[in-house]
Amino acid sequence: MACSQFEYVKQYETDDRMLPGCWIVLRLDGKGFTKFCELHCFEKPNDVRALCLMDAAAQAVMREFQDIRLAFGESDEYSFVFPRECQLYGRRCSKLVSLVASCFTASYVRLWPQHLPDTPLAATPLFDARAVLYPSDRALRDYLSWRQADTHINNLYNTCFWALVKSGKTNTEAHTQLQGTLADYKNELLFSQFGLNYNALPERFRKGSVILRQRVKHVKQTADGRSKEKERLEPCVLHCDIIRDHFWQQHAELLA
Amino acid sequence: MACSQFEYVKQYETDDRMLPGCWIVLRLDGKGFTKFCELHCFEKPNDVRALCLMDAAAQAVMREFQDIRLAFGESDEYSFVFPRECQLYGRRCSKLVSLVASCFTASYVRLWPQHLPDTPLAATPLFDARAVLYPSDRALRDYLSWRQADTHINNLYNTCFWALVKSGKTNTEAHTQLQGTLADYKNELLFSQFGLNYNALPERFRKGSVILRQRVKHVKQTADGRSKEKERLEPCVLHCDIIRDHFWQQHAELLA
Amino acid sequence: MACSQFEYVKQYETDDRMLPGCWIVLRLDGKGFTKFCELHCFEKPNDVRALCLMDAAAQAVMREFQDIRLAFGESDEYSFVFPRECQLYGRRCSKLVSLVASCFTASYVRLWPQHLPDTPLAATPLFDARAVLYPSDRALRDYLSWRQADTHINNLYNTCFWALVKSGKTNTEAHTQLQGTLADYKNELLFSQFGLNYNALPERFRKGSVILRQRVKHVKQTADGRSKEKERLEPCVLHCDIIRDHFWQQHAELLA
Amino acid sequence: MACSQFEYVKQYETDDRMLPGCWIVLRLDGKGFTKFCELHCFEKPNDVRALCLMDAAAQAVMREFQDIRLAFGESDEYSFVFPRECQLYGRRCSKLVSLVASCFTASYVRLWPQHLPDTPLAATPLFDARAVLYPSDRALRDYLSWRQADTHINNLYNTCFWALVKSGKTNTEAHTQLQGTLADYKNELLFSQFGLNYNALPERFRKGSVILRQRVKHVKQTADGRSKEKERLEPCVLHCDIIRDHFWQQHAELLA
Repeated sequence: MACSQFEYVKQYETDDRMLPGCWIVLRLDGKGFTKFCELHCFEKPNDVRALCLMDAAAQAVMREFQDIRLAFGESDEYSFVFPRECQLYGRRCSKLVSLVASCFTASYVRLWPQHLPDTPLAATPLFDARAVLYPSDRALRDYLSWRQADTHINNLYNTCFWALVKSGKTNTEAHTQLQGTLADYKNELLFSQFGLNYNALPERFRKGSVILRQRVKHVKQTADGRSKEKERLEPCVLHCDIIRDHFWQQHAELLA
Repeated sequence: MACSQFEYVKQYETDDRMLPGCWIVLRLDGKGFTKFCELHCFEKPNDVRALCLMDAAAQAVMREFQDIRLAFGESDEYSFVFPRECQLYGRRCSKLVSLVASCFTASYVRLWPQHLPDTPLAATPLFDARAVLYPSDRALRDYLSWRQADTHINNLYNTCFWALVKSGKTNTEAHTQLQGTLADYKNELLFSQFGLNYNALPERFRKGSVILRQRVKHVKQTADGRSKEKERLEPCVLHCDIIRDHFWQQHAELLA
Repeated sequence: MACSQFEYVKQYETDDRMLPGCWIVLRLDGKGFTKFCELHCFEKPNDVRALCLMDAAAQAVMREFQDIRLAFGESDEYSFVFPRECQLYGRRCSKLVSLVASCFTASYVRLWPQHLPDTPLAATPLFDARAVLYPSDRALRDYLSWRQADTHINNLYNTCFWALVKSGKTNTEAHTQLQGTLADYKNELLFSQFGLNYNALPERFRKGSVILRQRVKHVKQTADGRSKEKERLEPCVLHCDIIRDHFWQQHAELLA
Repeated sequence: MACSQFEYVKQYETDDRMLPGCWIVLRLDGKGFTKFCELHCFEKPNDVRALCLMDAAAQAVMREFQDIRLAFGESDEYSFVFPRECQLYGRRCSKLVSLVASCFTASYVRLWPQHLPDTPLAATPLFDARAVLYPSDRALRDYLSWRQADTHINNLYNTCFWALVKSGKTNTEAHTQLQGTLADYKNELLFSQFGLNYNALPERFRKGSVILRQRVKHVKQTADGRSKEKERLEPCVLHCDIIRDHFWQQHAELLA
C-alpha cells in the first residue's frame, strides 16, 4: 500500500497564485440570509445585534490575518483588503478564499451567544467568498465606494419598505410603491409619513462598517504586579464616509 | 451617491468556472492543527472524539450540498467528491471552495459540544480548501487511494511514535528510531515491544472514513397520528478499503 | 546596468499549464478571411487551391509537432488534436497556441506560391488560435462531429447561395430565399434549378479534411547507390465521415 | 447531421480575458533560432540584415494592431506593449497571443526576400508568444529595463565570444575564458586584444530596438492631381536608452 504509485495525482493540482502588485479584495457574502434572518427573527430593516456580530467576526478575521489592511461590511457581506505586496500563502486564491471564509464563519458561530444571547443559533450560517484584484488605488477606492453607495441605496429602500409594511401594507404593495422612485421621494416619504429624518438614523445603518487597525491603549500586568499602560494596534470599527477624499487623507497609510 | 459610476469595478471579477466533464475533488485541511490538538489535549495518536467530530461535520456538509457523491476523511483533512456533471454554482471554483470550507467549519464549531462535552472550544478552528479536477475515473480512484494509503502510512508511524513516547522516549528519540524504517519493522515493533497487533486497531484509525449516501429507515408520524416507516438517503460513515476494486464493484453507482 | 534589479518582473508571469489527462484541441481560425478571399479572388463557394493550401499548411504543422494525433479542417479553420498524455512544453497554453499559430501561418505564406502560382500574395494572412480541453473520448468525438456537421451545413448553404448569385440574384435576395430553409429544400433547389446533385460534389467540400499519420512507402538511396523502399509515417489528408463509428473503428489507435 | 446535438462541446471553452487596468506585455521569442541562424549563415555576433527584418516584422505587427503602444526587440525576441485600457478582443489572452505570433511570423516570411535577397528561406521560422500583465507603470518600465539590460549583457558577451572564436579559439575555449568575468574585463579584452571600443559599436547592437508611433510626413496626391504634404503616425525604430528617466520624460505620452 505504498503512496508512491498514486502520487502522480498531485500533478492535477493547479497553480492559482494571483497577480503580484495588485490589491486583493476578498468579499464574503451570506448564503440564503433572507431565510436565516427570518428563522432567527432579526429586526427589520436592520438588526443591530446581527450587524455587531458581523463586525465582531470581521475583527476576528483581522486578528487572525495580520496582512489585512482594512475591511468594509454591510448587511450580510464583508470585504477584506489585502495590500499589493501581500505574500500570504504565496497569494494562492483558494487558500485565501477558503481560510477567510472558514475564519469568518467559525467566528460568527462562536461569537453568536455574546451578541444574541436570547436567540439560540438554529441553523448553520454559510458565507461564500471570492477574490478580486484591483491594479490601481483608484480602482480599489472605487470598489469600496461602490459597496458604500450600495449600503446607502439598500438601506434607504429597506427603511422605506419596512416602514410601509409595519404601517399595514403588504410586501407587494410596499415594493410597488417604491419601485423606480428616487432618493428624494424616499426621504420625503420617511419624513412626511413616518416622521423619520433619514440622515438622523445611525451611521452604522447608513454607511456600513469600516475596520481599521488603530493604536489602542491597554493595561498590562508587569512581573512585579504593577499595571502598566501599553499601546497596540487593534482592528477598530468605524461608521464613516469612505467615498470622499477626507477619509483617505486622514488615513494616508492605508494606500501608502 | 449613485452606484452607477463605481459599478465598472465589477469588470475586474474573473470567471473561475471549472472545466465541465471532470470530477471535482474539494479537499479541506486543518490549519495549525498540531497546536489546536495540543491546546485541547487531543489523545495521541488518535482522538476518537475529534475524528467523530470531523465525520459529523463532513456529514453536515453532505446534507447541505446534495451534489456531493462521496467523501473521504482522515486526521484533520476531508475530501469531497462532486460528480462530473455537477452544475452547482456553475462550477465556480471560489464559490464551491469557500462555501464548503464555511459549512464544514461552522458545523465543526456547532457540533463540538456534542462530541467533546467536557472540553470547551478554546480557539477558532480553521480549514483551508482547494479544488482539483480529475478527468477520468481512474485518476479519481487513484486520488482516493492516495489519501487512504497516506492514512495508513501516517497512522502506522504515529502509532509507533506515540507508543515509544509514552514508554519514556523523547520525541526526538522516537523520531530517530523510526526514521527510514519500513512497515514490517513498525508492525514488529508494535507487536514485540508493546503487544499491539496493528491490524487489530480500529479500522477508523487505519483506513480513515468514507461517507456515502445510503438508504436509512426512519419513522415518520402521519397526519392521523400513526407512525409509518419510511426510507431516505442519508450520508453514512464507513471505515473500509477503497483502494481495491471490491468497494467500487459494491457501490457501482458512485462512478456511474 | 545589471539585470538583477529588474528580474523581479519575471514573477508576474503566470503558470498556464493545462489540466493533465485531457485531450487538447487547438483550433485555428482565419481572421478577416471574407476580405482576404475577395482580395485574392478565391472561387465561390469553394476554392480548391485555397483549401489544398490550408491542408498543406496543416500537414506542415503536423510534421513540426509530432505530438499531434489528428487534425480536421474546413474553410479557413483547422483543429489540431493533442493526446491526453501530451507533455509538449509542459502543456503550457500560450506556448502551444502561439507556436501552432506561428507555424501554420508561416507555412501558409511559404506554400502559397505552390498552390496559387498565378496569384501574388497581396496581404498578410492571420490566424488566431485557442485551446480547448476535452476530458472524455466522447466529448472529443462530439467536438469533431460538431465541426464536420458545421462543414456540411455551411457548404450546403454556400453552394445554394452562390448558385443563386451566379444565376443573377443579389446577395440579399439569395440570402432571403434561403433563410430558415431546411436541408431538403436546399438539396431540391440545387437539383431542380441548377441540375446539381449535392451528394455528387467533391467530398473535400462536403466533409472537410481529416489529417492522420499513415504509413507511406518512400524510396531511399542506400550508401552504395542502390535504391531501397522504406516506410514512414506521414500526415495524410482524407475526406471522409468522422461522425459515425466506422471511422473510429477503422482507426482505433486514434483514441487508444 | 444537425449541429445542435454536438454544440454542447462549446461549454468546454474557457474565458481567458486578462485583468483590466494592467499593462499587457506580449513577448515573442524565436524557437530554435540557434539552428535557424546557422542554417542561413547569419553573421556573428549580430547580423544587421536579420535584425532589420525583425524590426520590420514588428512594425508590420504595429500597423496591424493599432492598440500597441510601443515595442522593444533584441536578437530573436520582441515585446509588444498594449495599454492598460486596451479592450482588443476583450483582452482574451489566446486571441492576442496567437494573432500577434501569427502576424509577426507571416510578416517575417513575407519580408524576408527584401532583407536577405541573396539567402533563400530554407526553413520555417517559428515564434512563441506569451502575455504578462504589469499593474503599475514602475513594473512596466522595469520589465523593459530588464530586456534592455539583457540586450547589453548578451551583446557584450557575444561580441567577445565571436572575436575570440574568429581569432582562432574553439567555442569551448572562448566560453571558458569569458565565464564569470565582469563587464570591465570584457570591455578591456575587446579594446586591448581586438582594438574594439565597445561603446563605438552600433547602438542597434548595444541597445536593441524601440518602436514608437511618430508623426511622419508623407506626400499625398489630391483629386486634382496636385501633391499635398500630410502627416500620419508611423511606427518608427529607435535605438536608445529606455532604462533612464530621460526617454520617458521625452515620450510622456507613452505612460499617460
